[in-house]
Amino acid sequence: ARTGDPEVVFGRGKTPSQVVAALAALHEAHPEGAVLATRLDDDALALCRAELPDADLDEVARTAVLGKPRTSQGRVAVVGAGTADLPVVRECVTTVRVFGADPDLIVDVGVAGLHRLLAQRDRIDSADVVVAVAGMEAALPSVIGGLTGAPLIAVPTSVGYGWHLDGLTAWLATLNSCAPGVLTVNVDNGFGAGVAAARIARRAR
Amino acid sequence: ARTGDPEVVFGRGKTPSQVVAALAALHEAHPEGAVLATRLDDDALALCRAELPDADLDEVARTAVLGKPRTSQGRVAVVGAGTADLPVVRECVTTVRVFGADPDLIVDVGVAGLHRLLAQRDRIDSADVVVAVAGMEAALPSVIGGLTGAPLIAVPTSVGYGWHLDGLTAWLATLNSCAPGVLTVNVDNGFGAGVAAARIARRAR
Amino acid sequence: ARTGDPEVVFGRGKTPSQVVAALAALHEAHPEGAVLATRLDDDALALCRAELPDADLDEVARTAVLGKPRTSQGRVAVVGAGTADLPVVRECVTTVRVFGADPDLIVDVGVAGLHRLLAQRDRIDSADVVVAVAGMEAALPSVIGGLTGAPLIAVPTSVGYGWHLDGLTAWLATLNSCAPGVLTVNVDNGFGAGVAAARIARRAR
Amino acid sequence: ARTGDPEVVFGRGKTPSQVVAALAALHEAHPEGAVLATRLDDDALALCRAELPDADLDEVARTAVLGKPRTSQGRVAVVGAGTADLPVVRECVTTVRVFGADPDLIVDVGVAGLHRLLAQRDRIDSADVVVAVAGMEAALPSVIGGLTGAPLIAVPTSVGYGWHLDGLTAWLATLNSCAPGVLTVNVDNGFGAGVAAARIARRAR
Amino acid sequence: ARTGDPEVVFGRGKTPSQVVAALAALHEAHPEGAVLATRLDDDALALCRAELPDADLDEVARTAVLGKPRTSQGRVAVVGAGTADLPVVRECVTTVRVFGADPDLIVDVGVAGLHRLLAQRDRIDSADVVVAVAGMEAALPSVIGGLTGAPLIAVPTSVGYGWHLDGLTAWLATLNSCAPGVLTVNVDNGFGAGVAAARIARRAR
Amino acid sequence: ARTGDPEVVFGRGKTPSQVVAALAALHEAHPEGAVLATRLDDDALALCRAELPDADLDEVARTAVLGKPRTSQGRVAVVGAGTADLPVVRECVTTVRVFGADPDLIVDVGVAGLHRLLAQRDRIDSADVVVAVAGMEAALPSVIGGLTGAPLIAVPTSVGYGWHLDGLTAWLATLNSCAPGVLTVNVDNGFGAGVAAARIARRAR
Amino acid sequence: ARTGDPEVVFGRGKTPSQVVAALAALHEAHPEGAVLATRLDDDALALCRAELPDADLDEVARTAVLGKPRTSQGRVAVVGAGTADLPVVRECVTTVRVFGADPDLIVDVGVAGLHRLLAQRDRIDSADVVVAVAGMEAALPSVIGGLTGAPLIAVPTSVGYGWHLDGLTAWLATLNSCAPGVLTVNVDNGFGAGVAAARIARRAR
Amino acid sequence: ARTGDPEVVFGRGKTPSQVVAALAALHEAHPEGAVLATRLDDDALALCRAELPDADLDEVARTAVLGKPRTSQGRVAVVGAGTADLPVVRECVTTVRVFGADPDLIVDVGVAGLHRLLAQRDRIDSADVVVAVAGMEAALPSVIGGLTGAPLIAVPTSVGYGWHLDGLTAWLATLNSCAPGVLTVNVDNGFGAGVAAARIARRAR
Ligand SMILES: Nc1ncnc2c1ncn2[C@@H]1O[C@H](COP(=O)(O)O)[C@@H](O)[C@H]1O
Ligand SMILES: Nc1ncnc2c1ncn2[C@@H]1O[C@H](COP(=O)(O)O)[C@@H](O)[C@H]1O
Ligand SMILES: Nc1ncnc2c1ncn2[C@@H]1O[C@H](COP(=O)(O)O)[C@@H](O)[C@H]1O
Ligand SMILES: Nc1ncnc2c1ncn2[C@@H]1O[C@H](COP(=O)(O)O)[C@@H](O)[C@H]1O
Ligand SMILES: [Mg+2]
Ligand SMILES: [Mg+2]
Ligand SMILES: [Mg+2]
Ligand SMILES: [Mg+2]
Ligand SMILES: [Mg+2]
Ligand SMILES: [Mg+2]
Ligand SMILES: [Mg+2]
Ligand SMILES: [Mg+2]
Repeated sequence: ARTGDPEVVFGRGKTPSQVVAALAALHEAHPEGAVLATRLDDDALALCRAELPDADLDEVARTAVLGKPRTSQGRVAVVGAGTADLPVVRECVTTVRVFGADPDLIVDVGVAGLHRLLAQRDRIDSADVVVAVAGMEAALPSVIGGLTGAPLIAVPTSVGYGWHLDGLTAWLATLNSCAPGVLTVNVDNGFGAGVAAARIARRAR
Repeated sequence: ARTGDPEVVFGRGKTPSQVVAALAALHEAHPEGAVLATRLDDDALALCRAELPDADLDEVARTAVLGKPRTSQGRVAVVGAGTADLPVVRECVTTVRVFGADPDLIVDVGVAGLHRLLAQRDRIDSADVVVAVAGMEAALPSVIGGLTGAPLIAVPTSVGYGWHLDGLTAWLATLNSCAPGVLTVNVDNGFGAGVAAARIARRAR
Repeated sequence: ARTGDPEVVFGRGKTPSQVVAALAALHEAHPEGAVLATRLDDDALALCRAELPDADLDEVARTAVLGKPRTSQGRVAVVGAGTADLPVVRECVTTVRVFGADPDLIVDVGVAGLHRLLAQRDRIDSADVVVAVAGMEAALPSVIGGLTGAPLIAVPTSVGYGWHLDGLTAWLATLNSCAPGVLTVNVDNGFGAGVAAARIARRAR
Repeated sequence: ARTGDPEVVFGRGKTPSQVVAALAALHEAHPEGAVLATRLDDDALALCRAELPDADLDEVARTAVLGKPRTSQGRVAVVGAGTADLPVVRECVTTVRVFGADPDLIVDVGVAGLHRLLAQRDRIDSADVVVAVAGMEAALPSVIGGLTGAPLIAVPTSVGYGWHLDGLTAWLATLNSCAPGVLTVNVDNGFGAGVAAARIARRAR
Repeated sequence: ARTGDPEVVFGRGKTPSQVVAALAALHEAHPEGAVLATRLDDDALALCRAELPDADLDEVARTAVLGKPRTSQGRVAVVGAGTADLPVVRECVTTVRVFGADPDLIVDVGVAGLHRLLAQRDRIDSADVVVAVAGMEAALPSVIGGLTGAPLIAVPTSVGYGWHLDGLTAWLATLNSCAPGVLTVNVDNGFGAGVAAARIARRAR
Repeated sequence: ARTGDPEVVFGRGKTPSQVVAALAALHEAHPEGAVLATRLDDDALALCRAELPDADLDEVARTAVLGKPRTSQGRVAVVGAGTADLPVVRECVTTVRVFGADPDLIVDVGVAGLHRLLAQRDRIDSADVVVAVAGMEAALPSVIGGLTGAPLIAVPTSVGYGWHLDGLTAWLATLNSCAPGVLTVNVDNGFGAGVAAARIARRAR
Repeated sequence: ARTGDPEVVFGRGKTPSQVVAALAALHEAHPEGAVLATRLDDDALALCRAELPDADLDEVARTAVLGKPRTSQGRVAVVGAGTADLPVVRECVTTVRVFGADPDLIVDVGVAGLHRLLAQRDRIDSADVVVAVAGMEAALPSVIGGLTGAPLIAVPTSVGYGWHLDGLTAWLATLNSCAPGVLTVNVDNGFGAGVAAARIARRAR
Repeated sequence: ARTGDPEVVFGRGKTPSQVVAALAALHEAHPEGAVLATRLDDDALALCRAELPDADLDEVARTAVLGKPRTSQGRVAVVGAGTADLPVVRECVTTVRVFGADPDLIVDVGVAGLHRLLAQRDRIDSADVVVAVAGMEAALPSVIGGLTGAPLIAVPTSVGYGWHLDGLTAWLATLNSCAPGVLTVNVDNGFGAGVAAARIARRAR
């Protein structure tokens, strides 16, 4: 892209062969770095596996990567509240790597079990930037915001029960965090958080 | 009331003299217990002070109490996140007392300063019932829910900045808590939470 | 759980074998009490029936229970308005039992047929805590709130026709009840109401 | 109006002298019946009192009437839940009278005190049409719908506390009543309900 | 029902055999009148046809009727805006008949073709009560309200394109009609409108 | 402006002297055409009257115009439903004139009195473009859309009673019109409709 | 239609044979012009191909056209932001042609790649009317509004990710454009925009 | 604060003397750095001017600063779309400075006048982090996102007309930007954006 970032294929609404063709073409045009495809359905993942043997696939994140990222600078702590948030967490992790930074995965540290979160405090506080992924009432970013002064990006997820409004609850929560300086992206947008986190981490001292 | 609970005057929409007259009449009809008035504006509080010298007034809670509660059984921990939540916290505290239980006030323990909350853990865990009052993203009830197995009532408040939707954010958060068994009342409804908490505490062993 | 309550498996989003494995493992780790699985689909219920012959299944509630509850203290009246509310009512009943209290089931007492409700008045008023489950306009909790001073939890359900907003109508109704002290949980959340009710009932004198 | 109904002045957004002039002109044009003004503010009521000595004013309903209704046929039971609903109740009562039917006022029969409502059952059931006015969760129309087969119009009011959404809660409730055949009008629209009720009552045998 | 009205089976959420059994049982218990089933899916309609040869089925309205209505008093004009509104129109027509009044069906008179509507003006104006069924922006009830002084019930439908909000647009429109006295029911609720209309028509002189 | 259109001062949020200064400066810079100020409060209108004797003021539209429009080409029928819509209607009329077309004002033709609207049919149908301004349920644009094939712009207004949602009702109605090709602008945006209408009319043959 | 425009079949909710029959009948009744069918599903398109060999089909737009448009006057620039907006763009293009104007298709000019849009500036600015189709945050109409003074119609689309509210985001954006005079239609309503654009273009000098 | 950041006084809801006392106390406790007060009303600003002669006041931003920031590292481009966004822009600028980075102010570059924005392209692209402040449809962040690969924070503002929903329109737009990696904060939250931007800039190489 004109901004110097890697090229990305948004899988939703594309046929498997459109995805594979796009990945192959972009990889040929940009052999010096990695190209990424996100939001792949089962068929697209299967065709990638068959036709792109060099691709790096993640069935949970629903991503495919072709080629090697040009850099790996700066550390991004990607922190997830619950198991159900994992697809979003891993979409973020893959994106961070493709966009040239080093992801550090910390999961299952939801606020109803504080001791597990507090045990990871140093790892979180020493990162160049923190991404906090949480659904339901999304309390996690606020608690992390009280534990670190590092740049902090919240990713609300659509994980919930009853009237959760497909993630609106979590979204409103992150935008109203009592911890100052929390940044946010759209619901389930692990990709967007990863792009932003990598840009921040790559520039960090 | 037919349910055996104290009588209550809802001050909003009543003139100061209507409030004073209602309190006096109910007190005369029920001299053996306390009667409560809530949501009093400045004028109503002033007239109560002038005309009802025996009344117990709280300018922050905007309540007036006439008479002595019949019982004081069971302990209710009323926990508040921030300073701005105080009017709701104190409306709850007064209601708990009037409805026959013993309130235990714990304030300024918002989740962005976890150490202050953790320092109160035993006091919270040993209560017969806990009321957690919080605005903004209302993370407090979820964190408390991970610290205690006592009955837990969340009161979302309208405290917020920007697009908080007059408390909807906090309300949705409490209803989607990742801690199981969190009960909730309407936004800013310290009175309702106090009634319910007192009923639970009075019956507790 | 750290709060001393039974372990629970949330079935939604898990494969049948994940559910069975989780139940078996938790039962082995906690042989002295009961473990519960909720929101099981047809396949998960079938596999439980095949592989966990000792499990107690409820096809309507969509729950499975392994092991015996440690206690059975206090009585919870679980009151349902209509037939369509039954899955929520029974999820609540099972949860109450697993969490150590004694459920008392009262159904088909919607407010459009008041005589049926009034006939159950004593049974409701003598419970340690009441759970009122109702959809559509959810008038039931308010009417019950006028009949008893016992702690009262409303469960709004998504049962409705036309523009019911998937339960929002019922939810708003319960949070705005004209009866003081009504507590509420998320739409269709029989589980959450059961957890809270059992905690209250177990502690009641 | 072309439909044969009385002329009406909607006071909101009009100056006091515009209101008085409109009433006087319409009365002169239609001396054989009554003309009505609604939603009058304090100044408009004061000017009506000063300049239209024959007008019939209601300070609670905020209405003014000039002239005598041509008919008084059929009885409309106008039933109100609480004191705060009174302005809407009385706007309806006045409208019913001006539009040619006979209003029967029944107030303070909210569902949290069922015995008061049940005591009025016969008066309600024998009316030609029933108007039920209620705020908060607006349970009243559903309970009345179970007590009578007469045509029933619900008027949701904006009376509430906390997140009531200016009457949306009550409105959704009336539109989702579990009693069949409940009709509804906009929030606080005692006028619209009165027009419709009078039309029905006037034609009733 | 206790209100003296016919019994009704709400088909949604019931199996075909539950529907058939319910209809047969209610018909046996109430042989002197008609019983109605609404919202029947294809399977339920097929089983009714096979097992209840005397039933009167309507595939568009998705209704079944067993037995003869006891009365046929008063005329209800049921007016529909477009072809897509027909299922709601006919659910209303059948309900009117079962509940003892005489329906008069007038369709395809949407406001974008005014001449067709104006041609039916007398038939509409002479009815005892009018039901106006319309989707999209639901302008029809307002236009009819300017043409007649008869009692008028609007049924908003979920017929629309783009952001119609499943009928909310039409619903808000009917509740804000510039014609006074328009009554309304929930979206697509032809049944509720039919019940109310029949009650009004049966009592009309 | 770069698009060749007149310059406009948006009055809201500006002090009276800022408005006057801006108008004077723009007029000096563009002496060959007209400049427009909209949304002026009472103070701004008063200062304009005092300091800009050549300005053309409209107290109802809350606009001020300095200078002469360069052209007057094409006719725009500006049609208003009710008296309360007049400020929006006149803001549109002034804008049309300033932007170089010829406005034709037609008011008080709401759909509940169809005969008045039908009497203006030819004047509407012969315009180069029609602007239909309506509040409440905003049925007017749909009815006009059935009477003419001219380009048609609907302006929903915030005029309503009860739950009108500050114009959302009217807005949804215009966007869901059953007449094809209806264009719309934001609630109360007479200015925007006027700009668009003038652009269309000026180019019309 | 009475407005002189071509006849249109709205395919949604119609069976393939209903669509074919309607097209054939309308074509026979109006042989001198074109008739259009929109929103055709795969089956309807297949049957049109089989039975109406002279029909002009567009699988992306999901339209069918029978007959020749009577005129082709005036040029409509139809500008699309992204690939996913193409179905809406092409529904608009076909409608413009059928309704008698000349569409000029300009695609893939989203605002995140400004140079591509600026390269088309003259083609856009010289059109008689511009239609701008965009999803997500729908910034395109505002940017175009700064580049041209031609009449401008925005079509918000439901293309988005995360919490996009099925097009509400884009819709609100177009209605709040900072460029004056932007007109809008409902979400994804390429047909409505095409009708309006053709009417404007046909009359343009 | 425990995170190492400066102390901040949130002025809303505090009396002028509370603000002055809080600033003075925090400055005495933290003499080595700056302390900030935000959202000050006119009275609070006046008292600060009178009692805190060393304070640095901004009447537009409504902020007060006492003491010198400890560092000034990294450059933050703060870009504002329109004049009405200025209070938010300047709250952000002051916060950036107090939190230890160097703000670079670029205003009046809304997307309807693209040339002004493009003229600032290099200044924007060379910053360590960019904050884009915009109301109405908030198109600015997306256009900037196509011009630079620097970390980008969008601040939606409540600036709008008609149905803007107090900033929801702009908020939804920023969260659905077609440019990847756009981060966002709550409506009008210049403070939060400033905190986050300073944290990122201070750490940048
Ligand atoms: N702060 C409050 N919030 C909600 N309900 C209240 C409050 N205070 C009093 N009430 C209710 O208002 C009733 C009295 O209302 P009233 O008769 O209008 O004074 C009491 O019985 C309570 O149920
Ligand atoms: N189409 C319908 N829409 C709304 N309510 C209905 C409808 N049909 C039946 N009902 C209601 O459903 C009740 C019967 O419900 P059930 O006992 O579940 O069959 C009837 O008494 C009616 O009040
Ligand atoms: N894609 C579309 N979106 C909205 N309205 C449409 C569309 N296509 C056709 N229509 C409208 O539908 C009408 C025909 O509807 P019908 O008679 O049901 O086929 C036409 O006159 C158009 O006004
Ligand atoms: N303009 C603002 N918007 C949102 N939060 C703010 C703002 N200004 C200060 N704060 C927060 O408010 C806290 C201080 O609140 P208080 O102790 O009530 O003065 C600070 O630590 C900030 O996190
Ligand atoms: Mg969470
Ligand atoms: Mg909080
Ligand atoms: Mg119910
Ligand atoms: Mg009520
Ligand atoms: Mg219609
Ligand atoms: Mg209108
Ligand atoms: Mg776009
Ligand atoms: Mg902008």
